[in-house]
Amino acid sequence: MPDAVALLSEAAALAERALDARLPAESVEPARLHRAMRYAIFAGGKRLRPALVLLACRAVGGRDVSAAPGLAAVEMLHTYTLVHDDLPAMDDDDLRRGRPTCHKAFDEATAILAGDALQAAAFGAAAELGAEAVRVLARDAGSLGVVGGQQDDLDAEGKPVDGALLERIHRRKTAALIRASCELGAIAGAASSAQRQALAAYGEALGLAFQIADDVLDVTATAATLGKTPGKDAAQGKLTYVAVHGLDAARAEGARQASLAQAALAEFGPRGAELAELARFVVERRS
Amino acid sequence: MPDAVALLSEAAALAERALDARLPAESVEPARLHRAMRYAIFAGGKRLRPALVLLACRAVGGRDVSAAPGLAAVEMLHTYTLVHDDLPAMDDDDLRRGRPTCHKAFDEATAILAGDALQAAAFGAAAELGAEAVRVLARDAGSLGVVGGQQDDLDAEGKPVDGALLERIHRRKTAALIRASCELGAIAGAASSAQRQALAAYGEALGLAFQIADDVLDVTATAATLGKTPGKDAAQGKLTYVAVHGLDAARAEGARQASLAQAALAEFGPRGAELAELARFVVERRS
Repeated sequence: MPDAVALLSEAAALAERALDARLPAESVEPARLHRAMRYAIFAGGKRLRPALVLLACRAVGGRDVSAAPGLAAVEMLHTYTLVHDDLPAMDDDDLRRGRPTCHKAFDEATAILAGDALQAAAFGAAAELGAEAVRVLARDAGSLGVVGGQQDDLDAEGKPVDGALLERIHRRKTAALIRASCELGAIAGAASSAQRQALAAYGEALGLAFQIADDVLDVTATAATLGKTPGKDAAQGKLTYVAVHGLDAARAEGARQASLAQAALAEFGPRGAELAELARFVVERRS
Repeated sequence: MPDAVALLSEAAALAERALDARLPAESVEPARLHRAMRYAIFAGGKRLRPALVLLACRAVGGRDVSAAPGLAAVEMLHTYTLVHDDLPAMDDDDLRRGRPTCHKAFDEATAILAGDALQAAAFGAAAELGAEAVRVLARDAGSLGVVGGQQDDLDAEGKPVDGALLERIHRRKTAALIRASCELGAIAGAASSAQRQALAAYGEALGLAFQIADDVLDVTATAATLGKTPGKDAAQGKLTYVAVHGLDAARAEGARQASLAQAALAEFGPRGAELAELARFVVERRS
């Protein structure tokens, strides 16, 4: 079986094609808007969420080609949230994946609109998988999912540490879309209800493991490996797992959630091996 | 038959209920986000787009209850675009429907997120009508529809007048979602392909008539009747129909597009009467 790096790279190649096919060319008017959308999308991210759609689809016996719209949908959704989170009124970040953020490379208005259009395109892509995929994405992307998590995250800045609020932020801001990615893969692969539930449980645990690993990397990584400014969470008084529980407890909890994710794959037998390998990678990665 | 004011008021009552049922209560966390979403949605707008969903559904013999998710979808989509358009980085408006804009009543970050969450909720509501409704909404809300129109509108500020660009902006920024509203009503009412095409043609012409009437009102109305600052388009050097062609030509073109809209309803016979009345109202309104 290929290792996580090879799996991510395979999924990334499929994702690039699925995204390119669904985004208007840079020459299409309004050209500035389409340039900004493509700048944000084709920035060399890990493509973790598309990989989850792909591997979840495979785990239930679905074909790669069936998953393609889902790969595009979750990456466009994720990218729009990054573009908006980086805005001056939000996290005010200048660097993303080692390059100027969208509003720095273009301007604020264009970045807001590029994010808005990417969200619309994400739902258009999800619709290719049917109405149920749209329902899942809308639930996990909205005010009780990713957007709600970002609001809580902003509101928590500089406030006393609060373990319950931290967990709610992690579940909504990060785990929700990672779980949705697994569910979209399940839907694309025509999973049974039990299979979809198992993949959702995997996604939820993996999402928590991923966010905790992110919090750890913010204090342990360098800007060169991370592609963004490390130490920024601490400087902004962000509520992180490390701030609440310390570095050792964060590493232990990340590993525990990764194990929970792997345990949720039991019923897939060998077909769950690729997703299990991804769970291992998520907590051991350096960037 | 009830007149346009009565029809709009009937649709508004249905829309309030459909929206209320699909938005989390203000007490649900993050409470600040849900307060901002409801503040923006329940601001006493005309509810023109929900009315179009409702009346288009009726025109093809559909039941009001089938249209309800569509009423909510188009109004949430429309409201999110207003919240984002009002932001300081965009049109920088302080007043909307006679009240402080969302970022003035809350803050910029919350307004960006409330808009983002409203867009997600709009697609969730559209999914209740099935994947085709989502596809239509995604097409007309995205970079080749509403968002693309807003980008063109911003890029055109202070530039020489350009009739072709003006028409593109009107078609995308305003007519696209008005046409989509008619199409969602058609889908909700299980319209034939010919019926849906006729309703789309009606919506396109009505959308142009509506935007031209808006441009006229910006120079002829008072703040009290308009609920927002009149004369703002001219002050910002916005590309409007009046700026390009003059007030008399604008009034004539608005009336012509309203007639085209009414002509598109021929095949519906008496069932098209309510939509025809709405077209009359759109160009004769004072606010």
